[in-house]
Amino acid sequence: MSKTVELARHLETLRINNMYKTDFYWTWDKTDDEIDAIFTVADALRDLRERNKSTKIFNSGLGISLFRDNSTRTRFSFASACNLLGLEEQVLDEKKSQIAHGETVRETANMVSFMADVIGIRDDMYIRQGHEYMKTFMGALEDGYRDGILEQRPTLVNLQCDVDHPTQCMSDMLHVIHYFGGVENLKGKKVAMTWAYSPSYGKPLSVPQGVIGLFTRFGMDVCLAHPEGYEVMPEVEEIARQNCEKYGSKFTKTNDMKEAFKDADIVYPKSWAPFKAMEERTALYSKGDQKGIDELEKKLLAQNAEHKDWACTEEMMSLTKDGKALYLHCLPADITGLSCEEGEVDNSVFDRYLVPLYKQASYKPYVIAAMIFLAQVKDPVKALMTLDAADNARKMF
Amino acid sequence: MSKTVELARHLETLRINNMYKTDFYWTWDKTDDEIDAIFTVADALRDLRERNKSTKIFNSGLGISLFRDNSTRTRFSFASACNLLGLEEQVLDEKKSQIAHGETVRETANMVSFMADVIGIRDDMYIRQGHEYMKTFMGALEDGYRDGILEQRPTLVNLQCDVDHPTQCMSDMLHVIHYFGGVENLKGKKVAMTWAYSPSYGKPLSVPQGVIGLFTRFGMDVCLAHPEGYEVMPEVEEIARQNCEKYGSKFTKTNDMKEAFKDADIVYPKSWAPFKAMEERTALYSKGDQKGIDELEKKLLAQNAEHKDWACTEEMMSLTKDGKALYLHCLPADITGLSCEEGEVDNSVFDRYLVPLYKQASYKPYVIAAMIFLAQVKDPVKALMTLDAADNARKMF
Amino acid sequence: MSKTVELARHLETLRINNMYKTDFYWTWDKTDDEIDAIFTVADALRDLRERNKSTKIFNSGLGISLFRDNSTRTRFSFASACNLLGLEEQVLDEKKSQIAHGETVRETANMVSFMADVIGIRDDMYIRQGHEYMKTFMGALEDGYRDGILEQRPTLVNLQCDVDHPTQCMSDMLHVIHYFGGVENLKGKKVAMTWAYSPSYGKPLSVPQGVIGLFTRFGMDVCLAHPEGYEVMPEVEEIARQNCEKYGSKFTKTNDMKEAFKDADIVYPKSWAPFKAMEERTALYSKGDQKGIDELEKKLLAQNAEHKDWACTEEMMSLTKDGKALYLHCLPADITGLSCEEGEVDNSVFDRYLVPLYKQASYKPYVIAAMIFLAQVKDPVKALMTLDAADNARKMF
Repeated sequence: MSKTVELARHLETLRINNMYKTDFYWTWDKTDDEIDAIFTVADALRDLRERNKSTKIFNSGLGISLFRDNSTRTRFSFASACNLLGLEEQVLDEKKSQIAHGETVRETANMVSFMADVIGIRDDMYIRQGHEYMKTFMGALEDGYRDGILEQRPTLVNLQCDVDHPTQCMSDMLHVIHYFGGVENLKGKKVAMTWAYSPSYGKPLSVPQGVIGLFTRFGMDVCLAHPEGYEVMPEVEEIARQNCEKYGSKFTKTNDMKEAFKDADIVYPKSWAPFKAMEERTALYSKGDQKGIDELEKKLLAQNAEHKDWACTEEMMSLTKDGKALYLHCLPADITGLSCEEGEVDNSVFDRYLVPLYKQASYKPYVIAAMIFLAQVKDPVKALMTLDAADNARKMF
Repeated sequence: MSKTVELARHLETLRINNMYKTDFYWTWDKTDDEIDAIFTVADALRDLRERNKSTKIFNSGLGISLFRDNSTRTRFSFASACNLLGLEEQVLDEKKSQIAHGETVRETANMVSFMADVIGIRDDMYIRQGHEYMKTFMGALEDGYRDGILEQRPTLVNLQCDVDHPTQCMSDMLHVIHYFGGVENLKGKKVAMTWAYSPSYGKPLSVPQGVIGLFTRFGMDVCLAHPEGYEVMPEVEEIARQNCEKYGSKFTKTNDMKEAFKDADIVYPKSWAPFKAMEERTALYSKGDQKGIDELEKKLLAQNAEHKDWACTEEMMSLTKDGKALYLHCLPADITGLSCEEGEVDNSVFDRYLVPLYKQASYKPYVIAAMIFLAQVKDPVKALMTLDAADNARKMF
Repeated sequence: MSKTVELARHLETLRINNMYKTDFYWTWDKTDDEIDAIFTVADALRDLRERNKSTKIFNSGLGISLFRDNSTRTRFSFASACNLLGLEEQVLDEKKSQIAHGETVRETANMVSFMADVIGIRDDMYIRQGHEYMKTFMGALEDGYRDGILEQRPTLVNLQCDVDHPTQCMSDMLHVIHYFGGVENLKGKKVAMTWAYSPSYGKPLSVPQGVIGLFTRFGMDVCLAHPEGYEVMPEVEEIARQNCEKYGSKFTKTNDMKEAFKDADIVYPKSWAPFKAMEERTALYSKGDQKGIDELEKKLLAQNAEHKDWACTEEMMSLTKDGKALYLHCLPADITGLSCEEGEVDNSVFDRYLVPLYKQASYKPYVIAAMIFLAQVKDPVKALMTLDAADNARKMF
């Protein structure tokens, strides 16, 4: 029995009927079985590809990507996932980062989607706006499908919003599951999700939020550490707390990086912007107050620079479980002495974890493909079984 | 009998042998049967896709798009059409908008076309130049094919030139045909093709020209309305007049928007540039006279602003047949109070027609695909029959 | 027996086992049989396509292109080759031309390659850096494959580095082979690879270097001509000299264009930058010395302008064998009186050779596809035989 058949049999035990024709916004919208299903299908697609089996489920069709913030690796992951399933990627290049009027979003959404089966959107720049944009976009497509404008209703894959970064955090978690040899081994493992200094302040909060929202579902001991002023959205912290009750996890907060690293099995040190300041910036931006934005940025850079000691140094790593915690990063990292003078992580630490880091990233195309697969395929068990049994090589010779 | 088979049988009755291996520049180059064939194949491809049948006619090959003016919706329509037929879109990004020397066009045309089955070009910026550019480009490919440089002779699809916008106007007309329940119901219907004010003066004339050149072939009463100075190309008006004789249509002109809207069954209010000024601008541009261009633009903006009353208001709409004329627009529209302070159409009017407007746009990928299909497939009836009968799903699971 | 079967039988006689899973950097890395194999497969793929046979060897997969210098024709050739074989092109758009730190290249290389079967790189701007960049990039992928990050090891196709331009020079040579009716007719033919004046100084040296490194393998009499100061890399000249001994070719140098053109069977006049100055420029660039770079450029333009007499005029052409040497150019050429005031070639000369020039270019997609084919297909003879026998049309109707 191939690994794919094994995985398909596991998939059969899960309640996932509601995934068909739905979108992927946040991991906490999804049931445990649905999260499990995504990991399962991601692993199955990878197994099929490793065995040179075709994984195409579309004969033609488009996957539209809309990046309202720069991206290389997520863009390639999305393009890879589309290609893996038989879709052609088309990039929608919105030159301006202005939040468009509702009507215009509605129009654009329909105009690019006549042949689209999937829409991948990144909109992570402004607090309270990224998620809203995606909802507006998909609402327009829902209407378009209902009104007979679109012949199919495309699936959304959230490629990072202001709240969650589900394709990243699901890849992180799938990596963790394989690293520790299975979900059953994660109970009680300590995860340090910590802020770290970077010369470029202002990065989205979606990764720390996504991590505390997802990792607390696996019975882990998740410690969120950051300097004062770098709080994440309270509603996501609330999700993490609710998970603790439901899954017997722990969620703690500290302003001491060392406390977080102490005995940690996993560390995820990365920079993010101060939430309150981001809200302020969003408001200034809405008013078009460029002078206000410039002043705020100056203030934030100064605030940021006070916390240069928040770095994943060798000394910090030595505090972790046996000095050997698994180091995670969504990449690219700001590496001290390599990509910047002072950054998130020591070069020697980063370098030691290079292979696991790249493996962590390698799950993303499969996680995205699994999200599409489960939203687009009515009987995913049968589809996997059929792909496994078919005499259809990816590389024909 | 499926709708596709019905359509294929209708296609069999048409004289369309001359479409094979030809280009699509202007609708008035095509016979009635050829126009009918494009609508028929567009409907058939849409039916096949709705029934989840593969519509691929190519196993590999490229569709090259060359946009010498910005585009989102036509670009996506072209990419969708290519994907629908099995071609991969490749964008030729000419950074400069300068009209290249003949030799350079000849070279570029051949260099990008070694694997190209289709070339889609938009060149609508300069009067007397867009069409010329396409002719030069395709002449080069004709030579290249004859001389053994190219193994196939790609088909041109005019994605908008200075004279016609056939993919747009054919989509508009297919929408009108379905809206009114068939070509046979169009006789005597009044169409108001009217100028409307937009803060961005200078839009191409190809839509009004395309509309008067095409709609007069269907026995309709086409009224072209615009302020003085906004005349369209006289040779296209001549086409419209000839159509009247041949098809028993009417073609009238007025400088009074109300007169055009009065009892109209269809209204198409949109902005376009004053023709004479466009010719002047082309000449200034050829001389590289930037100061002259700037002065002309200032003059034109002032001229433009005198006609702010040319707007598709609720009051204007109430003049139309039962106050319920079908509102058409090629999108994006300048919507008063939404995308601009004063524009082509009232928000309430635009909003009421949103679903039909998006449906109007939804025909474009199929119209483009039909143009390619009929130029590339030797026996289109047999091809449609084969696609209909084949057990080849677009979405496999 | 089809031409493809004939070519496959010839391929069977060649020792090419070592091509599988290798990269293509420089032609002189490859054995004679390997060079022969590329020409053979290129011809076979072209024959298959001409006979409307599918040439797909991949069901899905990506071809990544990374152009660190502008390109239209090579980019389209690469995209065409990928499409021909069933891969989808994805462009990696490195905005900055800065040579990235080793670590960053390592990361980018892996991040874009999860589904990549081919990587095409152009990096020709800086002496001693382009080739290094490719080595670093592919080293990272080698590591990534070994460490289980990548499931397949992509193949490199050098789309032009600072040393060689193999896809260009192989296309040039395949054109020459067909023009003269076979490799056996090339012995003793005189090739004038000469510098020519262009208003834009600073073009890469990879074409003249690639030509002297490849053409000297065919028993030809290769004469390299340039003004003093425009020497090419000494190590490539050494390759050419070694080839002479091995293949009975001749390699001569002169500072007199006429001497080179005299009785030449083939002329290849094109501009390139002075090598020493390029080294100097690379050093200034590394130091970020913009002022130094500007001064150097001014000096180089002056030096360049002293050699306006190095042009492929009618007079020069009349010196060649029967006045009818085959004129080669990698395109685009600087054509006197057409694309510039004074350039590499007279308009009348260029125009007379237009068809052969475009044919020369038409080999590039097939040469690139052959490089990919031989690096990716374990049994290329069987693969060609299977493609030839299959009832699988490229254009289905």
